[in-house]
Amino acid sequence: MAEALAVEPGRDVLGSVDAYWRAANYLSVGQIYLLDNPLLREPLRVEHIKPRLLGHWGTTPGLNFVYVHLNRIIRDRGLDLMYVTGPGHGGPGLLANTWLEGSYSEDYPEVARDERGMRVLFRQFSFPGGVPSHVAPEVPGSIHEGGELGYSLAHAYGAAFDNPDLVVACVVGDGEAETGPLATSWHANKFLDPVHDGAVLPILHLNGYKIANPTVLARIPHEELDALLRGYGYAPRYVTGDDPARMHRDMASTMDDVFTEIAAIQRAARSGGVGRPRWPMIVLRSPKGWTGPSDVDGVLVEGTWRAHQVPLSGVRDNPEHLALLERWLRSYRPEELFDDSGCPVPELLEQAPTGTRRMGANPHANGGLLLTPLALPDFRDYGVLVGQHGGSSSEPTRELGRFLCEVVRRNAVSRNFRIFGPDETASNRLDAVYDATAKQWQAQLLPVDEHLATEGRVVEVLSEHLCQGWLEGYLLTGRHGLFSCYEAFIHIVDSMFNQHAKWLETSKKLAWRRPIASLNYLLTSHVWRQDHNGFSHQDPGFIDHVMNKKAEVIRVYLPPDTNTLLSVADHCLRSRDYVNVVVAGKNATPDWLSMDEAALHAARGAGIWEWAGGETGDQQPDVVLGCAGDAPTMEVMAATALLREHLPSLRVRVVNVVDLMRLQPDTEHPHGMTDREFDALFTRDRPVIFAYHGYPWLIHRLTYRRTNHANLHVRGYKEEGTTTTPFDMLVLNDMDRYRLVIDVLDRVPGLGERTALLRQRMSDARIRHHRWTREHGEDLPEVRDWTWPY
Amino acid sequence: MAEALAVEPGRDVLGSVDAYWRAANYLSVGQIYLLDNPLLREPLRVEHIKPRLLGHWGTTPGLNFVYVHLNRIIRDRGLDLMYVTGPGHGGPGLLANTWLEGSYSEDYPEVARDERGMRVLFRQFSFPGGVPSHVAPEVPGSIHEGGELGYSLAHAYGAAFDNPDLVVACVVGDGEAETGPLATSWHANKFLDPVHDGAVLPILHLNGYKIANPTVLARIPHEELDALLRGYGYAPRYVTGDDPARMHRDMASTMDDVFTEIAAIQRAARSGGVGRPRWPMIVLRSPKGWTGPSDVDGVLVEGTWRAHQVPLSGVRDNPEHLALLERWLRSYRPEELFDDSGCPVPELLEQAPTGTRRMGANPHANGGLLLTPLALPDFRDYGVLVGQHGGSSSEPTRELGRFLCEVVRRNAVSRNFRIFGPDETASNRLDAVYDATAKQWQAQLLPVDEHLATEGRVVEVLSEHLCQGWLEGYLLTGRHGLFSCYEAFIHIVDSMFNQHAKWLETSKKLAWRRPIASLNYLLTSHVWRQDHNGFSHQDPGFIDHVMNKKAEVIRVYLPPDTNTLLSVADHCLRSRDYVNVVVAGKNATPDWLSMDEAALHAARGAGIWEWAGGETGDQQPDVVLGCAGDAPTMEVMAATALLREHLPSLRVRVVNVVDLMRLQPDTEHPHGMTDREFDALFTRDRPVIFAYHGYPWLIHRLTYRRTNHANLHVRGYKEEGTTTTPFDMLVLNDMDRYRLVIDVLDRVPGLGERTALLRQRMSDARIRHHRWTREHGEDLPEVRDWTWPY
Repeated sequence: MAEALAVEPGRDVLGSVDAYWRAANYLSVGQIYLLDNPLLREPLRVEHIKPRLLGHWGTTPGLNFVYVHLNRIIRDRGLDLMYVTGPGHGGPGLLANTWLEGSYSEDYPEVARDERGMRVLFRQFSFPGGVPSHVAPEVPGSIHEGGELGYSLAHAYGAAFDNPDLVVACVVGDGEAETGPLATSWHANKFLDPVHDGAVLPILHLNGYKIANPTVLARIPHEELDALLRGYGYAPRYVTGDDPARMHRDMASTMDDVFTEIAAIQRAARSGGVGRPRWPMIVLRSPKGWTGPSDVDGVLVEGTWRAHQVPLSGVRDNPEHLALLERWLRSYRPEELFDDSGCPVPELLEQAPTGTRRMGANPHANGGLLLTPLALPDFRDYGVLVGQHGGSSSEPTRELGRFLCEVVRRNAVSRNFRIFGPDETASNRLDAVYDATAKQWQAQLLPVDEHLATEGRVVEVLSEHLCQGWLEGYLLTGRHGLFSCYEAFIHIVDSMFNQHAKWLETSKKLAWRRPIASLNYLLTSHVWRQDHNGFSHQDPGFIDHVMNKKAEVIRVYLPPDTNTLLSVADHCLRSRDYVNVVVAGKNATPDWLSMDEAALHAARGAGIWEWAGGETGDQQPDVVLGCAGDAPTMEVMAATALLREHLPSLRVRVVNVVDLMRLQPDTEHPHGMTDREFDALFTRDRPVIFAYHGYPWLIHRLTYRRTNHANLHVRGYKEEGTTTTPFDMLVLNDMDRYRLVIDVLDRVPGLGERTALLRQRMSDARIRHHRWTREHGEDLPEVRDWTWPY
Repeated sequence: MAEALAVEPGRDVLGSVDAYWRAANYLSVGQIYLLDNPLLREPLRVEHIKPRLLGHWGTTPGLNFVYVHLNRIIRDRGLDLMYVTGPGHGGPGLLANTWLEGSYSEDYPEVARDERGMRVLFRQFSFPGGVPSHVAPEVPGSIHEGGELGYSLAHAYGAAFDNPDLVVACVVGDGEAETGPLATSWHANKFLDPVHDGAVLPILHLNGYKIANPTVLARIPHEELDALLRGYGYAPRYVTGDDPARMHRDMASTMDDVFTEIAAIQRAARSGGVGRPRWPMIVLRSPKGWTGPSDVDGVLVEGTWRAHQVPLSGVRDNPEHLALLERWLRSYRPEELFDDSGCPVPELLEQAPTGTRRMGANPHANGGLLLTPLALPDFRDYGVLVGQHGGSSSEPTRELGRFLCEVVRRNAVSRNFRIFGPDETASNRLDAVYDATAKQWQAQLLPVDEHLATEGRVVEVLSEHLCQGWLEGYLLTGRHGLFSCYEAFIHIVDSMFNQHAKWLETSKKLAWRRPIASLNYLLTSHVWRQDHNGFSHQDPGFIDHVMNKKAEVIRVYLPPDTNTLLSVADHCLRSRDYVNVVVAGKNATPDWLSMDEAALHAARGAGIWEWAGGETGDQQPDVVLGCAGDAPTMEVMAATALLREHLPSLRVRVVNVVDLMRLQPDTEHPHGMTDREFDALFTRDRPVIFAYHGYPWLIHRLTYRRTNHANLHVRGYKEEGTTTTPFDMLVLNDMDRYRLVIDVLDRVPGLGERTALLRQRMSDARIRHHRWTREHGEDLPEVRDWTWPY
């Protein structure tokens, strides 16, 4: 029934929809231009105009058009619907619509639905101390920033996972559609389960132009575009034109069809139907800057790239432009749209959905509202037994996989935890999770497939962009997750990480945005164990990249062994509003700490391993060996053993750092140590040899203000080594045990002469090893099978 | 005629093709497994097997299959053809083929085409000190690393630009095809000019599986795949099966058709035809691990993901596996393929193309061989006249655009220079180039379009990945170019930069690889002038990212004004084998230096601006104000003016740094200053206030070993500010002139008391400004219109 209403006798309904659209457009133009006189009660004068005209008109009328039509269908059908705004700088439209429907004023009472509020709405836009021109975190109803382009559709699918009653409408701009991440995001429909997940409705908005160019998808023949979208697995419908009345009719009937189709697909799948559905999508082809000035100063503006930003730019100096602007604003007939107080007239108010059905108030878009903590098993139950420090070994990520398997099990009913990965979950040795779940996959299944199913907690696709985008969308809508990735290739999403971190930084300042689960990266198959893959797979620099973001949102952990990893993972899964970067190996690593020790060590973030150096009493050490990361810890321990054997009178201290942020001053990071704490670990004057997982200068960056910094000598990865053995990688980068011993001999005063022989032996050991690998293709047994002897 | 030969009476030809393929497959398996006994002259024993089995068989037989068929067509038609290997870890296949055709032994005489050479070929593969398992720089004929996936097709198009007689065959793996960059690369056909550019032949290799999963494109129905590829604008042809004889026939006839089609397209376009061609492409659907063991230990291997790496992994411990391996190797009948000396038999030798037609010896793939220097105008002719330091201002990138316009003009005939950008060339104010050229665009043209043409030196698409990939392909084949990009969004290609830098690092060690033109980034619309776009557009961290790569390949320049930018740009366009990062503003900036001064300053990389501080004689300064970047320089100059006005007796020194690498010790970077030089600029004991363009800690990282480091205080971007005025951005990040003056007052000993009033005035000025912006929406006139008063 509902379907029929809008299209046929719906003249009135569509008349109201048009009025609503005009109101949204009016409010959008107002934001770009007006400092004052928001209702145009008096003739427009220069002093009503903003001194700097910043904003983007081009995409806005199309976004508004979609928004008002979604409003209609939400009301008609009582839908739970979210709006993801792909096109950049669509801010004015979404601000206008959330103000119209009232959700904006609930979050920002100072921007009430009256003339005074409208004035603030206009003034604050792209104004110092105000709001940005994108659909930033400040915009109610948004989980997506329209700044950096390419991630809208991935975010939309992430939001739809495990939300079976939700429809995520996602407007994809034709500019954005040229980006790589967006181009591959279309394929996300091969991963969406119509039974347990919600629906995504992509709306490709072809307004034809970017900043300065036409767009590719708008300039290929219709048949090619249609083939492309069908090739992506969608059933596209087209709404094309520029006549508002006709376009309203077309859009309304298309929306009716499309939502009927979505409901039918879900009904069929949920009553036992099988096969991947061809989800509907809409292609909206409308002019850029639709309803704006059609030409200015004799050149065409509407329908061209010239409408991208501010179509009338000379308003303050050029009376003709000012007059044009007034005419443009008045063309929306504001006097019919707002009452005397500046409030939208009842005809408009009635059209918006109510309560949490308003897209600006949909709780999914403020995911913290819906967040429930994960049911977590006691991580201690998954630890390895450690009778003696370093007496056994285990594969950290493999043990973590067992813990994650139980996390999956315990949250199977609440369906709020997922693991994303680029085809690497098994390669990263987390495959124990497949005891409890499968990889979700909606494309063809064959008998040979393993761990694949139409529904599962693991989602794998060979696109780090998609993994990241899905996880972001999933977290921002109030769920939990993990992204496991080869360390080197996480740089593929550097820029997406940036945007998510900035989103968190901004969200934390907004009282109405509730905390969400942290974004957890598990970086494994790391630089020191890429002997298999070589130089192109070696890059530990994501940590450096992450460190540039605000301390409040960044955490970096380098657990040295299995038990510490488990403790760290448990902590990360409980945390909120952070980005946690955990770097851990998948290869067998000595179990240095018992579970109790590991939990304490992880909580402290850094500490002295007295048992390693054999420290007794409170004498100061002669040298400190610091380490962060599993491979560096191993080498520091081996170096310590060599020193204890050959120079038993040398007092060696081993300091292990799990939480990298501890190294910073407490004034720089909430986890930072005070100088007093730092000095207690690293002394004020003894040489410190520090073996670090990544690029060595990061440790200097974190510690340059410390008392003992001048005595700090850091070893780490320095872009050496390619396909070789694990130990040879260490040798080539000067971080092997022998080199560390030599570093100690070089730096502890007074050792020089009497240790010449030891120095020579260390040096010989390096050369012998290097030669052996080139001869035999593997590490010397004495290195391969080394165990901690104490 | 040639077309017919292979298909019909071609039994013999195809028999030879098959023999060649068997040889390539044999050599590939040998590389993965064998330490010795390369010709299987004796029964295979454990000691012939490598101790660590590292390598990837799965993709290899398909790559070999394509290679041998391309060989046939090259010989038949005398084609100039390059091979780009998208699938990861395809190393064994390309090493095998280049060895077979002889190009490998020319670059590596120790790996001759005989038994001894074959033994080295086998042994070195994935072996310490040997060669990686990807198609790395070490592989002749390659411009593409198969490590990080996603860029093959972009590289192929980059190589084809301006090479009208070249065909670039590009094998795209179905794993790689899931990545974002690859997904959008298909659209590159809208930018390829059939008249002046070469052809790209994409060969989508559907072997169905990644490491642990099926691939999306192999598991959608044929009609969907076909629609997708047609939607991308190609005319796909399919070669499907697993029976070698049938597959050889199909592939040969398909290749014949496809190359005939390419020739016809080019003929038509070059004789005046118009319209974008539907270029042919091939879809090869063949089993993963084709011709390998079909099942092992009772599970299916051939044709599944289990064939991805090493299908028989227990060869050293499991006699059954060893026997299987021997059977597998012998199934290629090596005795028919190699003569007694280990050289390929004449039947094979005859099949390979000769000389530079061999794909391993194609000079385009060693672009330095073809590189000719750009014809550059004298950059001095494009400078701005500077009568007085800071007496005028100009927009640096706009002036650079005039210089680039002339670069375009002078190299119009040689067609070896291109500018790539994500829809931002005009926004970045380089639009003067459109006086000499246009943006290349092969999709539909409309009368409203400006600066668009089927051929042009500028290539714009809204994908940083494509821009980077195209430029890399263009440079690696011996041409020159520039990538201009918004500073914040260059992080989108962090990982691509990594791989290119690593490629350069490795190439420099290979005597046979000739130097290529540097990859030049012009980062503009930078962090300090994103007041328009806000927080999500603010990130100066690409510099930090770049600094992690080896000093030999990295250069970073921060020219403070127009003339310095011109000098830097000229230098970068002449340089070889570097990545040059140039950060420059597009907004009006004071012209601090005359052209002569600028050229000298750029050449020195850093220097004292005596005229700014008003230094006289050789007295030590009381304070040093350092700066790097245009906005920081402006603020340091304004702070200097305030200090000269209010504290005329204070001796101020201004040091400007253009070349960031100068700050490092000379032991760390070839551009680094000695300690003596550094001390001469920054003193050994005076306070240094340093205003830096990016994240402040980078300056500490570069200078922590310097004598005066403890007195160094750095200001920079610290993730503050969003949509606001330019000066307010500086205030929010504590880098404004007033804050710098306060820093000086705080740090120069003995100033405290007598400057309390000045301190108060500076503090008031900040507050006054901040309030003004929030009231008026723009900067205070005294800041907006400030000019250097001396």
